[in-house]
Amino acid sequence: MPEPRLVRVGLSELGRTDLPGRDLFSAALAAAFEGLPDPAEIVDALYLGNQSEQYENQIMQGTLMAQWAGLTGIPAERVEGCAAAGALALRHAVQDVRAGTHDAVLACGVEKMTAGGTEGATNALAAAFDRALEQRSGVTAPSQYALLAQRYLHEHDVSEEDLARIAVKNHANGAKNPHAMFQREIDVDTVMESPPVARPMKLYDCAPVTDGAAVALVVSPEVADDLVPRDEQVSVAGSAATANNISVAERDLTFVKGANLAAERAYQEAGVTASAVDVAEVHDAFTVCEALLAESVGFAPRGRGVETARPPGERSQGWTDVHLNTSGGLKARGHPIGATGVAQAAEAYDQLTGHAGDRQVDGAGVALLVNEGGVADAVTAAHLLVGPNGGGAR
Amino acid sequence: MPEPRLVRVGLSELGRTDLPGRDLFSAALAAAFEGLPDPAEIVDALYLGNQSEQYENQIMQGTLMAQWAGLTGIPAERVEGCAAAGALALRHAVQDVRAGTHDAVLACGVEKMTAGGTEGATNALAAAFDRALEQRSGVTAPSQYALLAQRYLHEHDVSEEDLARIAVKNHANGAKNPHAMFQREIDVDTVMESPPVARPMKLYDCAPVTDGAAVALVVSPEVADDLVPRDEQVSVAGSAATANNISVAERDLTFVKGANLAAERAYQEAGVTASAVDVAEVHDAFTVCEALLAESVGFAPRGRGVETARPPGERSQGWTDVHLNTSGGLKARGHPIGATGVAQAAEAYDQLTGHAGDRQVDGAGVALLVNEGGVADAVTAAHLLVGPNGGGAR
Repeated sequence: MPEPRLVRVGLSELGRTDLPGRDLFSAALAAAFEGLPDPAEIVDALYLGNQSEQYENQIMQGTLMAQWAGLTGIPAERVEGCAAAGALALRHAVQDVRAGTHDAVLACGVEKMTAGGTEGATNALAAAFDRALEQRSGVTAPSQYALLAQRYLHEHDVSEEDLARIAVKNHANGAKNPHAMFQREIDVDTVMESPPVARPMKLYDCAPVTDGAAVALVVSPEVADDLVPRDEQVSVAGSAATANNISVAERDLTFVKGANLAAERAYQEAGVTASAVDVAEVHDAFTVCEALLAESVGFAPRGRGVETARPPGERSQGWTDVHLNTSGGLKARGHPIGATGVAQAAEAYDQLTGHAGDRQVDGAGVALLVNEGGVADAVTAAHLLVGPNGGGAR
Repeated sequence: MPEPRLVRVGLSELGRTDLPGRDLFSAALAAAFEGLPDPAEIVDALYLGNQSEQYENQIMQGTLMAQWAGLTGIPAERVEGCAAAGALALRHAVQDVRAGTHDAVLACGVEKMTAGGTEGATNALAAAFDRALEQRSGVTAPSQYALLAQRYLHEHDVSEEDLARIAVKNHANGAKNPHAMFQREIDVDTVMESPPVARPMKLYDCAPVTDGAAVALVVSPEVADDLVPRDEQVSVAGSAATANNISVAERDLTFVKGANLAAERAYQEAGVTASAVDVAEVHDAFTVCEALLAESVGFAPRGRGVETARPPGERSQGWTDVHLNTSGGLKARGHPIGATGVAQAAEAYDQLTGHAGDRQVDGAGVALLVNEGGVADAVTAAHLLVGPNGGGAR
């Protein structure tokens, strides 16, 4: 079974832009293919993560982006699992290369969230909640995650300030990331004094509404060697996806079971354990989510996930030495929903190939990506990437 | 490479119902699993075709249907390529079994088109047209297909009555199909005297707005033998998908290039040619579309596709002996958009296993499915199925 290689990544501008989705996609594609032959000479199939047709009133965006890239006559489709759509697209690329169905697959994501204004974004996001059981209550994304945060604060010796420190850490990372939507440091007071959105979630606990696109090129080892040097290739050693109940009512609010399952499967495929992971991009749509995921994927003991904000040497016993969300995470890099899973891969690629600039983690060899759809746990897709410094299991 | 087997199919009621999408799905699932163990004991992954989140304001329907079926902890996602979504879901099931990733995959589709009334359906369908190039002109599905029909009538010695006969034939087939939305015969006058929708398309040239769901269980040969007798297994011998430009302006209006490519690839995988096909379900969203597809996939000479309405022995030279849309097609069986590709598979399964009742084609051994998204040719997915009577190539 050929081990898929990630050989190029590209991001558009991430933020609030005047560009439509297709132009954001073209910018990301151009960034990914700089110096390579035209995509039409390389790419066999395309998968696009896209959360909602409502932003731009456009379905078939997989086909549309293929057309925009000059790729016709190949399979091109949209996959959708809310905010996990990008990683589901990446997973299809990985599966196609593993199966030998295709040698070069474009995994991409795009979301033009500001097209319908704040109300449009709130409505499109609300489509992620159960129509029969939740939407009628008028729930919003922050109010759903607030339930998780309230429970987390209740169960553990954790304060709102502890959650705020996750945002502070991610803004500090974003300040070092030229791709980030927010490149400005903040402090705990910034978070604590920001307007409440749904208690205990305040404005700075929440990832922003972001326009953006991301592209990743996943190829067979043979094609990889044709395109780029070996030290610019990252192996995709593990890939897994799981679904769980959509409605929050019937789930464990403080343990993301789907993420646990998906990460364990990705570790198993790669022959590693959680302690092998040097850098991880996990789905911090809200600060509490980063803490919950750190615990659910085996980085931190229950109730201590908030220590993600501390440097590895200063955490409680039971923590691994992983660095989380060096990109700035969804909070500071930005959260263009369907593109987020691919943007996570872009950060891991940069870290594992030594291209992460001021935010480089020395010797980073193994990365975990965790992308969530719905209120964390409805859909999870996890990937385990190994760079040139990664070797086998440690 | 294990050859995937289709071992069970199920349809919900097709029509205008009071049931939400999830209940339509449950009805189709129950029909498919009658006498089998619970889905949770069998199914490893689920793909759902669903055209638009707008009907029920619900994304993540792949996850939702998995939850509704008691399937959690497995990969479950929505795939979207407009009206080809159902066949794209089927294709993922086929690919997973071929690759050995999963042994039993549920390919399904659901669409609750009447949830927002006629205006809701018209708006949701309009999202299939290019936002930048077409939507601003106020185009609708019938007006787009009318362009194809006008050009077809202009290029060939074909009349509106010839197109009407396709609807008459499909209603005659639907009258024999207990699953069909319309089980009533019509005549050419019914079509010709029906209200114009977008000339030359009249009401009876158009497939209806339909609520419905369809389920197909695709498994490895080993699992197939555990579940059902050999004469209730249908092999999926060919599977292909292609994308083309979304906007109609830059395409050949009277030849569906994507369908041509996809069908040729499916024939090639199966080691057959068009003449081997006994029964075919092709995407007659509008009467003209059945004629164009009959020509594009190699059943009929250019300009003679309208003879699909004649019995095989009475057609022009160059035609194969295929029987088209024995289910009644989209026109009479109904067109629950994201479910249509799976409903096509259900008809082929019944024909190839001898369960098609009054509409049974004697000795049917090989079937072709052609499912289209957008204005025919934006997305195509084609499958070549071989039943117990099919043998190899003929």
